[in-house]
Amino acid sequence: MSTVTVYSTKNCPYCRMAKAFLDKQGIQYTAIDVGADAAAAEKMIALSGQRGVPVITVDDEVIIGFDSQRLNELFGTHPSSEIYDVVIVGAGPAGLTAGVYCARKLLKTLIVSESIGGQALESWAIENYMGYRMITGEDLMKKFEEQVRTLDVRLELDRVTGIVPDENLFAVTTISGITVKAKSLILTPGKQPRKLGVQDEEKYLGRGLSICSTCDGPLYKGKKVAVVGGGNSALQTAVEMSGIASSVSLIVRSTIKADPVYVKKLEGIKNITVHLHAHITGLAGEPFLQKITIATEGQDEQHIDIDGVFIEVGWTPNTDNLKDLVTLNEKKEIVVDVDGRTSRPGIFAAGDVTSVKSKQIIIAAGDGAKAALEAYEYLMSQG
Amino acid sequence: MSTVTVYSTKNCPYCRMAKAFLDKQGIQYTAIDVGADAAAAEKMIALSGQRGVPVITVDDEVIIGFDSQRLNELFGTHPSSEIYDVVIVGAGPAGLTAGVYCARKLLKTLIVSESIGGQALESWAIENYMGYRMITGEDLMKKFEEQVRTLDVRLELDRVTGIVPDENLFAVTTISGITVKAKSLILTPGKQPRKLGVQDEEKYLGRGLSICSTCDGPLYKGKKVAVVGGGNSALQTAVEMSGIASSVSLIVRSTIKADPVYVKKLEGIKNITVHLHAHITGLAGEPFLQKITIATEGQDEQHIDIDGVFIEVGWTPNTDNLKDLVTLNEKKEIVVDVDGRTSRPGIFAAGDVTSVKSKQIIIAAGDGAKAALEAYEYLMSQG
Repeated sequence: MSTVTVYSTKNCPYCRMAKAFLDKQGIQYTAIDVGADAAAAEKMIALSGQRGVPVITVDDEVIIGFDSQRLNELFGTHPSSEIYDVVIVGAGPAGLTAGVYCARKLLKTLIVSESIGGQALESWAIENYMGYRMITGEDLMKKFEEQVRTLDVRLELDRVTGIVPDENLFAVTTISGITVKAKSLILTPGKQPRKLGVQDEEKYLGRGLSICSTCDGPLYKGKKVAVVGGGNSALQTAVEMSGIASSVSLIVRSTIKADPVYVKKLEGIKNITVHLHAHITGLAGEPFLQKITIATEGQDEQHIDIDGVFIEVGWTPNTDNLKDLVTLNEKKEIVVDVDGRTSRPGIFAAGDVTSVKSKQIIIAAGDGAKAALEAYEYLMSQG
Repeated sequence: MSTVTVYSTKNCPYCRMAKAFLDKQGIQYTAIDVGADAAAAEKMIALSGQRGVPVITVDDEVIIGFDSQRLNELFGTHPSSEIYDVVIVGAGPAGLTAGVYCARKLLKTLIVSESIGGQALESWAIENYMGYRMITGEDLMKKFEEQVRTLDVRLELDRVTGIVPDENLFAVTTISGITVKAKSLILTPGKQPRKLGVQDEEKYLGRGLSICSTCDGPLYKGKKVAVVGGGNSALQTAVEMSGIASSVSLIVRSTIKADPVYVKKLEGIKNITVHLHAHITGLAGEPFLQKITIATEGQDEQHIDIDGVFIEVGWTPNTDNLKDLVTLNEKKEIVVDVDGRTSRPGIFAAGDVTSVKSKQIIIAAGDGAKAALEAYEYLMSQG
């Protein structure tokens, strides 16, 4: 049995959360209010080098802040054996927000996702998330994640491979071989990038073809690149790459469908060439991509020397495993109602995977909150 | 040139808006913090008969509260009689987000609202807006407002009194006598505080009864107060007031229905007394509130000496003017579909006023974005 001491102050929410975590795990501890006890405060500062609460000591170990990860390692339990109130599939803006709301309702919550941040991670610059005039997708998702990590939510980096209804529960299986049971589910698996549908596409992925310009953009300094697509992401990528690459060919299947603000940014950038009503028909080069073939309406095929191609032709929902579980629409999106309920009681959904028409971080976050609050209502009604 | 004085407290959002309005119109004024200056507080109370801020004096006239109508009459300018692509009614989280999204679509946009920030302004501490671990409602709404102000959106402090369909347009009339025309509308008027339903309630508003604890809290230093309500806002107000007032009576009609995190905060605060299954039946005192009567289930009526009562009994949607325009549900909320469309083409809605079950800042913001993007689609389809 470890000796645990929690140094805290009266109004500190993180102290409260740390104590709530320990209470929930049945860990006995001594709580010291360093706001009221000056000698204890000095002792805490000497021990931790911190003038900040909470500080938690576990035998000789000093834990600074509400370090839920460390507390989980010390006192947490493993996901396999337990029944969760909620399992959230996906950890993009919708899943992380749902996680925060579930934790604040003190629901036993597990988030399973391959990555944290989802598609939002790949945005160069976000200007329409309320509260920040301009922030990178990565920075914003780091803030979301930190917010989840301050709370008592288990976050597992894993891939869900199957979900099966099991009496009143759902059995969720992952690629690492774990099966957990959940009283309710929140599905926020997002979308994955659509492909070009050209021969040798798989071969060139990572060898000139990229589906993440935020990741790979800096590797194309002074080189010739193409961006495929005509939406906001494609234009944003073209504009960003124009400052890195020597030239950018923007290849648009029909016409540009981006927001006017992106179109304005594009205008007047000299090293961007726009090809409308055009698409790539061939890829060539060894071992890296060196040349692409473009077919343009009413013109002969063109061969262009290119070092890199960034694919921004949209996304397809990650619902291959879900079609027997909940109703999907013709785009394979999960059909939800105004409160985030799917066709099956106990299963809720939010974010880009749903039938909600507009795909935005702030919309995913709002709908993640809705789904969590609906899941809470559902669980309460189940008694 | 008029002599203008603004009596305010430090954290009162309506005080800030009054000052921001005067600043914008280039009006010089003297600002007095009655939270810090007890003598000035006495003077304000004598002048106005109010224990509530803001109070604004303009020469011999005493204006009580942030009376945008009167301030507009005295100092306002008028928006031109142009046709807007979108008029947004309300400037809470939903309306401000809709404003940002409309502006980014380069739509000609007007926001009309009595105040900026809506109900969110009155939150002491927000821990579930994604991107901020902890922020006051006022600070968050300031960020929302700044984000709108960087864009080309007109924001008018005024009250919409009527909306009438006018061929393919909508005619929007305000209390200051302006009529503007709009091709589409986004309705985000939010809710207003529900009243106690007790005799003499109107008489005591500002004289002991308060609907904004953030504003008027500092005027009750060392006094006895009651908080009415059993939800998150009531508990949060009780906890905050326990640090300001000498004692707090929390009067709950049935049982506490707040989130567990708020219930935990409440526990162990010694100067809070909780009255369950209780409600106020009478108010007394002259000219200020001095005593309340409480009826508790199964007990005789009690008379309690009280200097201030903070009402936190929920909200009712601001849809009195809208019932002939769009379909409302049984709670008088605007019925919306999953993308924010109302029953009438060209009219969209978001935020606490809608039939969406959960009321949260992040949900209002997300749905504000949906409504704006739907309005854009609608306008494009109209050619």
